[in-house]
Amino acid sequence: MKIITTIEQLTVHITAIKKANKSIGLVPTMGYLHEGHMALATAAREENDIVIMSLFVNPAQFGPNEDYERYPRDLERDAKIAEKVGVDFLFAPTVEEMYPTNGGIQIIAGPQSKILCGATRPGHFDGVLKIVTKLFHLTLPTQAYFGQKDAQQLAIIETLVRDYNFPLAIRSVPIVREEDGLAKSSRNVFLTEQQRLQAPVIQQALDLAKRHYLKNGDILWATKLATEHIEYNATGKMDYLQMLSYPDLTEVTEQTDKVLLAAAVYFGKTRLIDNIIFQRKGE
Amino acid sequence: MKIITTIEQLTVHITAIKKANKSIGLVPTMGYLHEGHMALATAAREENDIVIMSLFVNPAQFGPNEDYERYPRDLERDAKIAEKVGVDFLFAPTVEEMYPTNGGIQIIAGPQSKILCGATRPGHFDGVLKIVTKLFHLTLPTQAYFGQKDAQQLAIIETLVRDYNFPLAIRSVPIVREEDGLAKSSRNVFLTEQQRLQAPVIQQALDLAKRHYLKNGDILWATKLATEHIEYNATGKMDYLQMLSYPDLTEVTEQTDKVLLAAAVYFGKTRLIDNIIFQRKGE
Repeated sequence: MKIITTIEQLTVHITAIKKANKSIGLVPTMGYLHEGHMALATAAREENDIVIMSLFVNPAQFGPNEDYERYPRDLERDAKIAEKVGVDFLFAPTVEEMYPTNGGIQIIAGPQSKILCGATRPGHFDGVLKIVTKLFHLTLPTQAYFGQKDAQQLAIIETLVRDYNFPLAIRSVPIVREEDGLAKSSRNVFLTEQQRLQAPVIQQALDLAKRHYLKNGDILWATKLATEHIEYNATGKMDYLQMLSYPDLTEVTEQTDKVLLAAAVYFGKTRLIDNIIFQRKGE
Repeated sequence: MKIITTIEQLTVHITAIKKANKSIGLVPTMGYLHEGHMALATAAREENDIVIMSLFVNPAQFGPNEDYERYPRDLERDAKIAEKVGVDFLFAPTVEEMYPTNGGIQIIAGPQSKILCGATRPGHFDGVLKIVTKLFHLTLPTQAYFGQKDAQQLAIIETLVRDYNFPLAIRSVPIVREEDGLAKSSRNVFLTEQQRLQAPVIQQALDLAKRHYLKNGDILWATKLATEHIEYNATGKMDYLQMLSYPDLTEVTEQTDKVLLAAAVYFGKTRLIDNIIFQRKGE
């Protein structure tokens, strides 16, 4: 595995790979790799000739009161993990390398970004679109890998690629779960023993809502049942539990093909998210 | 020359060209080709294996009170001209083909777009950035050709490519002029005989300002002299005559490398633009 820190070096490699007509799988990350990232890299490894992982804590997607400075960074540890899962190139640029100039042109996410997790993070998805666009142009991937765990981010990036004709495919990788169904997350370590025992209730509630909706088509009732299931079985405080069309993230109608059922729940100060995406009329 | 109207057809050709490692020159136009477009295509023909010309009247760059519906269209005539100057593929999609979906993500031009011609056309350059981004992704050009005549558009597109790392080079093609120095434009036919005789004064004034600035470095004085030269020698009414850093289009400072001297002048209802770009410290 090669570690690359400059755009100049990266471009030399990409040009050679493209000339050889090899496929490129890109796995964009902010580093501090966990099993979710490893699942992305493993999928990229299986489906491409060359795997590039980017590792960049992107200041543009952090709000002024968010934890950009405190975000954990450990290149040495990440490089070992990346090498183990078969990454060919680890691209780890500095902020100056990625943002040397700023002419003020912005990519602004639409209504998709104002709801769910976006409601409390204004500008966050604009920053994601900015870095993703730059990484797509720099690495020219055949396929780019994102986790379904961040379903809203996935939906917005899929919309960017569709509406702006990026010449690549977005591959979504299923949520990696603990044995009891809890979605894996770096934040799970912050749960108390009791909270950890209760946390799988989120996935159970989403499944309940899905089964209920597929049976009788009543969204309000399905999401109400699921919300009550969480409130009854856990001390967690609901942030949201919603069912929306996917990837537009608008109201579900008769025209809707795919739907997203997504939830965010606070256990103490720890906010956990989970979701399922399925065909509105069943698979 | 092949005329292509769908993205699917275009993608088949682009994929084959890329596999063969051939260079692509893109000439984006709104059709109704004139000598300016022909100069772009001729440059593209000299410098690339394959030349693609796009021909699309882009609704996104017209304001609500602008002449989108009345904009002249003549595919048959344009195809003859394009073939004559050596275009290989003429891409002429419908609006439905280019904008089948809209998830609401926007590319918004920055301060560069609020001045000069942009001052009276809010949203215009956002629409330009949208279509240019889509065309770049669809045609994957090695080089894309734009006329220096539209210097502000050129500056904003160069900024997009620089700040978002598009994998291509922007080639600017010099202004094509009549024998007396007037910049060629489809609008010159609207000038009365007297206006036509006066119109070369714009280029003379810009040259005067450049010579004066290079000699004594006084921007205010140089632009004042040039403005007076136009007002004294022509019945035209000034819209603007400005000197700015290029491509940022901000105030000229000691750090400025390239400068843009640009003017827009009304002769009756006909608005003519012209400009020169040069090294601040002389070539």
